Amino acid sequence: MANKNLEEKKAFQDYYADDYSHCFGCGRLNENGFKLKSYWDGDESVCHFSPKEYYTGGKKDIVYGGLIAALMDCHGAATAAAAKARELGDEIVQGEIPRFVTAYLRVDYLLPTPIGNELELRGRVKEISGRKVFIEADIIAKQKVCAKGDMLFIQIKE
Amino acid sequence: MANKNLEEKKAFQDYYADDYSHCFGCGRLNENGFKLKSYWDGDESVCHFSPKEYYTGGKKDIVYGGLIAALMDCHGAATAAAAKARELGDEIVQGEIPRFVTAYLRVDYLLPTPIGNELELRGRVKEISGRKVFIEADIIAKQKVCAKGDMLFIQIKE
Repeated sequence: MANKNLEEKKAFQDYYADDYSHCFGCGRLNENGFKLKSYWDGDESVCHFSPKEYYTGGKKDIVYGGLIAALMDCHGAATAAAAKARELGDEIVQGEIPRFVTAYLRVDYLLPTPIGNELELRGRVKEISGRKVFIEADIIAKQKVCAKGDMLFIQIKE
Repeated sequence: MANKNLEEKKAFQDYYADDYSHCFGCGRLNENGFKLKSYWDGDESVCHFSPKEYYTGGKKDIVYGGLIAALMDCHGAATAAAAKARELGDEIVQGEIPRFVTAYLRVDYLLPTPIGNELELRGRVKEISGRKVFIEADIIAKQKVCAKGDMLFIQIKE
């Protein structure tokens, strides 16, 4: 399979060009950010994240809904980049992975997400159509899908 | 007009019960959070926020898309609470404003949102149907609508 590097070791975000690595959510050069890391796990992409205790929603025992949306966006954009790279089939070199912007993000909140746990994000590629990549993702806490994401990302032109 | 307090001085979020005031985005009791404040401005709700310089997206000059979504969610939920309170028509007492959870949040990203500016959020009530409140919102930077939000909030049962 092509892009073995993408499947293993390095995260999708580790391949972003420096100029595109400042995202608060997942930029490796953002010293204040979350530095989210996304990887392939078979046909799905996966990312793990444990929010700090103050990322609460209105009530003290649940995760802030805004954070849920933010995690979806970063993991979704990274999955879009990796999926496009995989489609292109070439070995991906640092800085040469396609980069995407979010066109839309929809999050359906199914259950309150309990805080104090590691969250698992699982992404799936719904469709790749030229520069458009449609991604869906789940956020899982304590083995339950608490939120579902539906996203469209557009590849940035060179 | 009823709920004069809601229209003036205090923000919607200042009326939330203590138990529901821990939101990272807008809880007045979350010491680490943004403490967003939403108010009526005629038929629209308004909120102003200046993101810190490290809330960047992939590129250094734009606001993190996840933050945009998070701001929509908080301002939308507050607008839903205030709209329901206004519908009920009673004077709102601290701790007795209806509280809502997000059912879905959709954000359409129209333009990159430039960082280093005060952002303005403007919300509108699309529909109130029992415990459901549909809200739409814009995020404006430098006089341009950079993102649009479409949200459904569900009133929490007593």
